[in-house]
Amino acid sequence: MTKQQLIDNIYKTESFLCVGLDSDRKKLPRHLLGCDDPIFEFNKAIIDATAPYCVAYKPNVAFYECEGLQGWTALEKTVAYLKRHYPDHLIIADAKRGDIGNTSAMYARCFFEQLDVDALTIAPYMGEDSVTPFLGYRGKWVILLALTSNKGSHDFQMTESKDGECLFETVIRKSQVWANDENMMYVVGATQGELFADIRRVAPNHFLLVPGVGAQGGSLEEVCRYGMTKDCGLLVNSSRGIIFADNTERFAEVAGEKAKELQQQMKQLLK
Amino acid sequence: MTKQQLIDNIYKTESFLCVGLDSDRKKLPRHLLGCDDPIFEFNKAIIDATAPYCVAYKPNVAFYECEGLQGWTALEKTVAYLKRHYPDHLIIADAKRGDIGNTSAMYARCFFEQLDVDALTIAPYMGEDSVTPFLGYRGKWVILLALTSNKGSHDFQMTESKDGECLFETVIRKSQVWANDENMMYVVGATQGELFADIRRVAPNHFLLVPGVGAQGGSLEEVCRYGMTKDCGLLVNSSRGIIFADNTERFAEVAGEKAKELQQQMKQLLK
Repeated sequence: MTKQQLIDNIYKTESFLCVGLDSDRKKLPRHLLGCDDPIFEFNKAIIDATAPYCVAYKPNVAFYECEGLQGWTALEKTVAYLKRHYPDHLIIADAKRGDIGNTSAMYARCFFEQLDVDALTIAPYMGEDSVTPFLGYRGKWVILLALTSNKGSHDFQMTESKDGECLFETVIRKSQVWANDENMMYVVGATQGELFADIRRVAPNHFLLVPGVGAQGGSLEEVCRYGMTKDCGLLVNSSRGIIFADNTERFAEVAGEKAKELQQQMKQLLK
Repeated sequence: MTKQQLIDNIYKTESFLCVGLDSDRKKLPRHLLGCDDPIFEFNKAIIDATAPYCVAYKPNVAFYECEGLQGWTALEKTVAYLKRHYPDHLIIADAKRGDIGNTSAMYARCFFEQLDVDALTIAPYMGEDSVTPFLGYRGKWVILLALTSNKGSHDFQMTESKDGECLFETVIRKSQVWANDENMMYVVGATQGELFADIRRVAPNHFLLVPGVGAQGGSLEEVCRYGMTKDCGLLVNSSRGIIFADNTERFAEVAGEKAKELQQQMKQLLK
């Protein structure tokens, strides 16, 4: 998916919501546990209920990987379902991969050829040659961790260099030599508030993937105040706040309502 | 496995070699491709041939993940085979995972409960709460990326803070507040030469997992000169230099010879 297609989808849907499919088997509604593939059945219902209100889906691979072969099957089926029924929705595999060049190339094959998602989150610690193997795929996106939403983001990402630059700024600045705003986005946590202004100084045009609204306590208004660009430039993710808002037989309906609530706020903020 | 058990195995085997099972399907000997599970058959033969000369095995998860369900099955079977036939060998899943706390907990379940490996490589970028979920498992190890073997290690890991400390030193120093030398090791690339002396100033007693000998060009002698402790303190990994040294029907035999060559050098260096 190109940047322009993503922007078009955002304005058409009046939403920059990404629904996080962190489909922890232990949290699924009980009545689904008898199905052959409970995680896929859950995802399918969540997707059908939320698709009108969002532009992207982000399965976090950990929740599938920890179920072994069954989990991988559920992930593959979820991606295939999305591609078939909702081809305009961006599919992000949240995997936070990154390794030496020849190994990153294997991960790229895994996610961009076999699973065939549109975007993949990558950890920057190992530098350029750990990231570039993911950049050679037309229409695919690398979403590089910059300033994450968790408490531990302060441990290293905020470390100030002797040149007065925080590590997350160094990551954003240097990675722009390898990539551009048509094939790279950055992860910036919604909990980071005013730091979005610093991010926009280094990356004025890149899309940012913003987790941390909802269960993690980030504010949508604040993210938009400091982070929105003329093309929106934001994909705001909510996972638990939508998919696990209810765990009765009405789970999908309630997830749809929660997604719609966010979409309605986003519609105002897009104006 | 405890630190003392690992040390005992090293002195018994007179080796601190870790064999990297980067079993890229495309590089397997042709005659194996007709098997039901070529990757597992390859690993089994490599393991049987090299086990007398090494103390650890390190499958890099990328090479399995990129084969989808078949790849995960091969990885599970490889781990089970090692546990059954070579229970004294440390099994390291080289996966470089790390995510926010609740997600890291899922990865920990995946690797330490289901796959049941002894150690897992972790990327430090997201800080404390991305690492600590892996530390609650008795006898299991976190191997944190510190200073990697690739060219990109210079992009961020060598960034000097305003306090005059490189990022890799900050990672080692801070992580010692969360963990100790009985449950954490660090990845330090063999290509880093004299920087091992800096590492030893910050982590005098921790085991270091050292990739980059062989195909990547690091020197075993140099690693030992600057990095060895009184308890050895090193696990030196070789992957391609051993497992793909030959791709005829003699592949396992040649792999065993290559592993033995390294073991003989290590035996001298341990004295």
